[in-house]
Amino acid sequence: MTAINDEIYQRIASSFSRQSAMETLGITLTDAKQGYVEMALDYAEHILQQQGFIHGGVITAGLDSACGFAALTQAPAGHEVLSIEFKTSFLRPAPKGRILFRGEVLKPGRRISFTEAGAFIHDGGKEVLIAKMSSSVAIVAIAD
Amino acid sequence: MTAINDEIYQRIASSFSRQSAMETLGITLTDAKQGYVEMALDYAEHILQQQGFIHGGVITAGLDSACGFAALTQAPAGHEVLSIEFKTSFLRPAPKGRILFRGEVLKPGRRISFTEAGAFIHDGGKEVLIAKMSSSVAIVAIAD
Amino acid sequence: MTAINDEIYQRIASSFSRQSAMETLGITLTDAKQGYVEMALDYAEHILQQQGFIHGGVITAGLDSACGFAALTQAPAGHEVLSIEFKTSFLRPAPKGRILFRGEVLKPGRRISFTEAGAFIHDGGKEVLIAKMSSSVAIVAIAD
Amino acid sequence: MTAINDEIYQRIASSFSRQSAMETLGITLTDAKQGYVEMALDYAEHILQQQGFIHGGVITAGLDSACGFAALTQAPAGHEVLSIEFKTSFLRPAPKGRILFRGEVLKPGRRISFTEAGAFIHDGGKEVLIAKMSSSVAIVAIAD
Repeated sequence: MTAINDEIYQRIASSFSRQSAMETLGITLTDAKQGYVEMALDYAEHILQQQGFIHGGVITAGLDSACGFAALTQAPAGHEVLSIEFKTSFLRPAPKGRILFRGEVLKPGRRISFTEAGAFIHDGGKEVLIAKMSSSVAIVAIAD
Repeated sequence: MTAINDEIYQRIASSFSRQSAMETLGITLTDAKQGYVEMALDYAEHILQQQGFIHGGVITAGLDSACGFAALTQAPAGHEVLSIEFKTSFLRPAPKGRILFRGEVLKPGRRISFTEAGAFIHDGGKEVLIAKMSSSVAIVAIAD
Repeated sequence: MTAINDEIYQRIASSFSRQSAMETLGITLTDAKQGYVEMALDYAEHILQQQGFIHGGVITAGLDSACGFAALTQAPAGHEVLSIEFKTSFLRPAPKGRILFRGEVLKPGRRISFTEAGAFIHDGGKEVLIAKMSSSVAIVAIAD
Repeated sequence: MTAINDEIYQRIASSFSRQSAMETLGITLTDAKQGYVEMALDYAEHILQQQGFIHGGVITAGLDSACGFAALTQAPAGHEVLSIEFKTSFLRPAPKGRILFRGEVLKPGRRISFTEAGAFIHDGGKEVLIAKMSSSVAIVAIAD
């Protein structure tokens, strides 16, 4: 890990630790570097919908944080990120197991960054995409 | 409350009670009738993002359930609902207080229902829209 | 029509007349006032997809202009509008006849306005929604 | 080009030729194979918005056709495609020149295929993404 990515990781980890929703849901930060963030979530009984799948809102919470933090890796110092809007597509119901959320920046901007994130599971040795987010993220000065 | 709406409410309440994610987040069912569902969420310390606002994924979880259950009120017996995709727009950060999620069906369908939901807060005596969802919901036979 | 709405209509009509895509597609401006714009499109042979329905991109062009111009009615002088992103839901295929596009502002902003638009047809004396757009519109200074 | 891809190309080209909207806008089919379609559009005076950029609805028409035809390459014989909904993100205004629309299937389905498409331009020798679509496409039997 380079010095610049170490600094990025610290910035993201610091912000992540202040998201109480992540701890409540069981989502953990597993990687962060320039324009990219990864988080993980293990299947658990307290985050389900009525058919026993992980709730779409919970998966969206992971994807949203992945998108927002990916944008934050490229935001100027003294700036924060806020989701303007996002869309989540649910390609497959999430089976029991571990989900990885991977967010990246499609195009960074001074005011708006366009980002995407995927939710992946492991199925028989290969990664399978189960949900995909497209998100517009506002870059705002902290005292804005 | 008419007999038909009482039956609808029982169906939604039964499905809602099996969504463990709702209890985890603190979301409660407050109304359900033909094509319409309402739920509530009070501001709490365990569902926040890094700036102290309720996490966008948590608001989305409420909106998603409101859309899905609204579609379920019009689904044939023996059928369930699954979100195909949704988009959430964040008009304003949610201040501290109570959020109401109101879902309704734009167009019911045999296979796909188009739904919308709004997240509202009370601000000085009037209701203010803070987030809006547009969602496509699949209607699936339970043994499908 | 009040003086203020007359001024708004002139502003929108002037901008609309510079959208060559509208003339190409056959879309006309039919109303504009504070936070609201209406346009119309008649079914025609040159704007179809392979099954004889009006192309989803053409319907989206009408909805997009309705959203953008609705935002423009509330933008400060010297400012223009640019779509950040939009989502279109296709509730029903458009039958032959006239489509009305109605755009409105959900929440105006200094930098971003949240807007919606519906595409309506007349079916047996009543209006039917065939498509719905949710759009985020950037408000930009003309010399920005 | 393999025999299977030649057959796919013929199927897409046949359907494309019946989309009068494509000819009106100036969009041409440039490639089609298993799960993938490419189309092109040259900047022209009749497809613009008020600032002289190609209208977002026109770009969306290209992206929509790219998504729908990508889904069609994997649909069973005797089936057609219909957009359920799509979202377009506008990363950059389109400069004058040629736009390529590239559609691909994220996950094919019996009833719903999840697809994406990008709009690219050439800028100083390298490809730049200017717009991105996420689309849900219904697979419907022709006599459905």
